[in-house]
Amino acid sequence: MSSPASSAEFRPKARRPRGFMDRRGATLAQERAIVDKVLAVYQSWGFERLETSAFEYADALGKFLPDQDRPNEGVFALQDDDEQWMALRYDLTAPLARFVAENYDALPKPYRRCAAGPVWRNEKPGPGRFREFWQCDADTVGAASPAADAEMIAMAGEALEAAGVPAGKFALKYSSRRALDGVLRLAGVAADDTRTRLTVLRAIDKLDRLGADGVRALLGAGRKDESGDFTPGAGLSAAQAETVLGFFAAKDALAAMRANEAAFAATGALAELEQIAATLDRLGAAGFARLDPSIVRGLEYYTGAVFEAELLIETTDEAGRPVRFGSVGGGGRYDDLVSRFKGQPIPATGFSIGVSRLAAALAHAGAEAAFDGPIVVLPFDAEAMAECFAIARELRVRLDRPAEVYLGGSGPKAQLKYADKRGAPVAVIIGTDERAAGQATVKDLVLGASLAAKAGDDREAYAALREKVQVTVPRADLVAQVARMLAAPHAEGAR
Amino acid sequence: MSSPASSAEFRPKARRPRGFMDRRGATLAQERAIVDKVLAVYQSWGFERLETSAFEYADALGKFLPDQDRPNEGVFALQDDDEQWMALRYDLTAPLARFVAENYDALPKPYRRCAAGPVWRNEKPGPGRFREFWQCDADTVGAASPAADAEMIAMAGEALEAAGVPAGKFALKYSSRRALDGVLRLAGVAADDTRTRLTVLRAIDKLDRLGADGVRALLGAGRKDESGDFTPGAGLSAAQAETVLGFFAAKDALAAMRANEAAFAATGALAELEQIAATLDRLGAAGFARLDPSIVRGLEYYTGAVFEAELLIETTDEAGRPVRFGSVGGGGRYDDLVSRFKGQPIPATGFSIGVSRLAAALAHAGAEAAFDGPIVVLPFDAEAMAECFAIARELRVRLDRPAEVYLGGSGPKAQLKYADKRGAPVAVIIGTDERAAGQATVKDLVLGASLAAKAGDDREAYAALREKVQVTVPRADLVAQVARMLAAPHAEGAR
Repeated sequence: MSSPASSAEFRPKARRPRGFMDRRGATLAQERAIVDKVLAVYQSWGFERLETSAFEYADALGKFLPDQDRPNEGVFALQDDDEQWMALRYDLTAPLARFVAENYDALPKPYRRCAAGPVWRNEKPGPGRFREFWQCDADTVGAASPAADAEMIAMAGEALEAAGVPAGKFALKYSSRRALDGVLRLAGVAADDTRTRLTVLRAIDKLDRLGADGVRALLGAGRKDESGDFTPGAGLSAAQAETVLGFFAAKDALAAMRANEAAFAATGALAELEQIAATLDRLGAAGFARLDPSIVRGLEYYTGAVFEAELLIETTDEAGRPVRFGSVGGGGRYDDLVSRFKGQPIPATGFSIGVSRLAAALAHAGAEAAFDGPIVVLPFDAEAMAECFAIARELRVRLDRPAEVYLGGSGPKAQLKYADKRGAPVAVIIGTDERAAGQATVKDLVLGASLAAKAGDDREAYAALREKVQVTVPRADLVAQVARMLAAPHAEGAR
Repeated sequence: MSSPASSAEFRPKARRPRGFMDRRGATLAQERAIVDKVLAVYQSWGFERLETSAFEYADALGKFLPDQDRPNEGVFALQDDDEQWMALRYDLTAPLARFVAENYDALPKPYRRCAAGPVWRNEKPGPGRFREFWQCDADTVGAASPAADAEMIAMAGEALEAAGVPAGKFALKYSSRRALDGVLRLAGVAADDTRTRLTVLRAIDKLDRLGADGVRALLGAGRKDESGDFTPGAGLSAAQAETVLGFFAAKDALAAMRANEAAFAATGALAELEQIAATLDRLGAAGFARLDPSIVRGLEYYTGAVFEAELLIETTDEAGRPVRFGSVGGGGRYDDLVSRFKGQPIPATGFSIGVSRLAAALAHAGAEAAFDGPIVVLPFDAEAMAECFAIARELRVRLDRPAEVYLGGSGPKAQLKYADKRGAPVAVIIGTDERAAGQATVKDLVLGASLAAKAGDDREAYAALREKVQVTVPRADLVAQVARMLAAPHAEGAR
C-alpha cells in the first residue's frame, strides 16, 4: 500500500528519460494527422496495414545496422529469460523482412504492406535528436520491376501533399545504385572492389554538404576537416575522381548516361532509370519527381533505385539564417534484406516518411494542425455540478464539439483561468443567479482575449465591446448562443 | 554490403519473438477502429491526447508493480549508458503520473488526458497471453470529487458503444474501496490493519471465480485449491467472515450501507457512492452503470471508486461451452500515484480499455470491422503496365476506393489468384486483345467466388451466370462498370 508514510520513505524524482519526448497539444495533433493522412494514401494504393511488435530477435536486426562492426550498438537490447537477445526495432523495414520471411508461403506476392509506429535508436541524445520517433512506411516485397520503384516515388509525393505540404514545395529526387556502378565502371574501378565502391558512395552522399572540393578529396587521398580529423579517401586517381565528379555535375543525367551507354547499360542503370521516368510520367508524378544522381543514400542495404523526399520550404536556423528543411523521408530498393533469411532472391522496395521531422517542417511553415480546446462548463456554485454535466452532454451531442465540466475545487476566477489554459473557445457559466433564473452565462474567450490585447488601457473601448464577450441567456437558448459564438469570424483566425 | 556471399555465411531464422504478435487484415482493422472511436469519445469529453515515450526510469514504475517485492519483475528493463535503469511502460497510468508530477505547474488543473498505445509486460507467454498489447485510457488528475469518477463510468459506457458493443450487451460495474473499509469496520477489523485489509480485498476479488465457500475459507484460516496449494487466509473469525459475506450478498448495496450508516458514513463510502449514483443519473448512464460491491479490483494503488467494464456477450470456450466474455476494461481512483512524486496530495481517477481484448470480443460476437481488399488491375500483357497504372489512378480518384496494379512477374492465372488472395472485390484485366481494341475486362470476384461455391458440378448453372461475372467493356466505360459491380447487392454480404 502506498500510504502517506511509505511515500515519505522513498520519493522518486519525476523525470522523462534522456532523449525521449512527451508530446501533446498541437504538436501531437499534427503528428497524428500526418500519420492518418499518409496511411490513408498508402492504403488507397493497395498497401495493407501490418503491425509487428516492438521487439525483434537481435540476430534478425544486427547485420543491417548502420555500423556492422558493432552489431548491437545503436539499438536497445536485452536478454530474454531464455537467454535470447531481443532488441527494439530501429526501423520498420527489418521487422517487415522478418515477417515476410516467416510467413512467405501464406502471403500474396507481391506483398504490399504499410505501417506506422515508433522506432528506437540507442544513440547519444542531443538537441533535436531523439531516441524514439515515428516512421510511416510502405513497401512492396516480391516485385523486381522498376515500375514498383516508380510507384513508391509517385505515392510518396501524393502522401506529402495529403499531409499538408503544398504542391511545388517538395521534390522527390531519385537515382539508382546502378548509376553509381556505371560511373565506377566508366572510371575504371573494378566491379568487385566493394570497399572502394562504399567509400565513393559515402563521399557522394556528402556532395550537398562538402561541395565538389571536399568530395574530390574524399575520392582521392582523403580529407582533413576543420576539427583536424582525417577521413581516409577512396584512393582514386585525379583523372578517375574527375570522371566521377563530372558525371554528378551533369545537368541531364539520362543524357550523360546515354553518352556513355556501354558503362551504364552494362550495370542496368540506363534501362532502369528510363523505365522509372516513363512510369512516373504515367503516374502524373513528373512535376515533383526528379532524377538526381547525387542521391545515393548512406544505408548499405540498398541495391537499386534510391529516393529522397526533400522539402523546398525555407525556414531559418537558430541564428536566423535561411535554411532549407531538407529530407523528410526516403527509401529505395533492397533486394537482399528478405533474401538473407530465405536464401533465395526476393526483390523489395519501399519508402519511409519521418513523421516528427515532417511535423516540425509543417509547423515551421505555419501549417499548424487545427487545435482547439473543448467548450468548458463552469459550476461557479458547487450545487450546479449536475446541471453542468447535463449541459456538457447537450453541447457534445447537439454541436458535435468537445465539451467538459470543470471538476476541480476552485472558485470562479481559477475556473475561468482553467478555461483559458485549456484553450477553450467558449465557457459556459452556471452560478447561483443563473440557476435561480433558469439562465446560463456564455463567454466568448477568443473574443475576450483579443479585446483584452487590443483595448490595452482604453477603458471605453473595452467597455463598449465587453457585452459582446459575455451574455446571459435563458437556459433554452444556451446551445444556440454557444453555436453563434463558435461561428463568429474571429473564432477562426484568433488562435 | 550484403552480397550473396556474405548472406551465405550467416542466415538468421525468421521468427517472431516469444509472446509477441504480428497483426494484419481484419484483426488489425478492428483494433485500429476501436482505438480511433474510443479516443474520439474521450476527446469529445474534453480529454487531451498525450503521448509519452515507451521508456520510463525504473524507479518511477517499480513501486507500483503488481508485486512490490520484486520491483523489476514483470517489466522489460535495461540499463542506459549512464547506468540508470529504464523499463518499458507496463501501463499508461504510471507514465501519466510521472508526466503530471514533472510538469505540474504548467498543466491546467484538473488535467484531463487520454492516451492509446502499446504496453509491455515481461510475463510468461501463454495461449492468449501476450507480452505487448494496446490500452486506451482516460484520466482526470486533480479532481477529488466523486463526480469525476461518475464521469469516467459514463464515458466508458459511451466509448464501448462507439466501439461497436451493442447497448444492453455491457455493464459498467462500480463500487469503492471505502465500501470495503466500511465492511471491515462493521466486522470490527482495526482500520490500520492494512495486511488483513489487503487479504480480504484479494479474497473478495475472487468471489466470481471461487463462490462464497471459497471466499469464506480465504477470509478465515485459508484455502487449499485443487492442486493442493494452500493460500493463507485473512484470519477473520467465522462471525466476521459472515458479516463480510453478508454485505456482498445484499441485493441493494446502498440500502445495506444505509442500514449500517455509522460504519459506511465514517469511511466516506455512503456519500461517495450516493454522489456517483446521482451523477450517473444526470449523465444518462443509469442504464448500464451498476453498483456492485464485489468489484474491488486487484491493483493495490486504488484508493476510492473502482469500476469494471463487463461484456454481457456470450461466447463459447474451446470446448464449446457458453462463457461470458467478462472484463474488457476497468479503472478507479488512485489518489496516491501522483502524490508519491510530489509529496502533496493529488487526487486522480481513470479508466482503461483493453483494446485487443475488446477486439477479440467483438470478433467473437460477429461484429467484424469491414475489411475489403483493393481493386486490382492486372497487366496480362507486360506492355500493359503503364496503361494499368493510369487505370488504377483513375479508379482511386473517381471511385474513392483503394486500387493497385499487380507488379509481380507472373502470368494471368497467378495474377487472378493474387487478386483473390488480396480479397479484391473486382479485378480489371488488360491483355493484348483489350489493348488492341481499346477495351478492358472487368471481373466480379465476389460473385465469381459465390457462383463457384453454389454451382458446384452444375455446369449449366455456372455457364448461365458466368457472363455476369466477367464482362469486356470499352475503355471509356470501365470506371462505370467497376462501380456497378461494387454496388451490386451481393458485394456487401458475400464476405
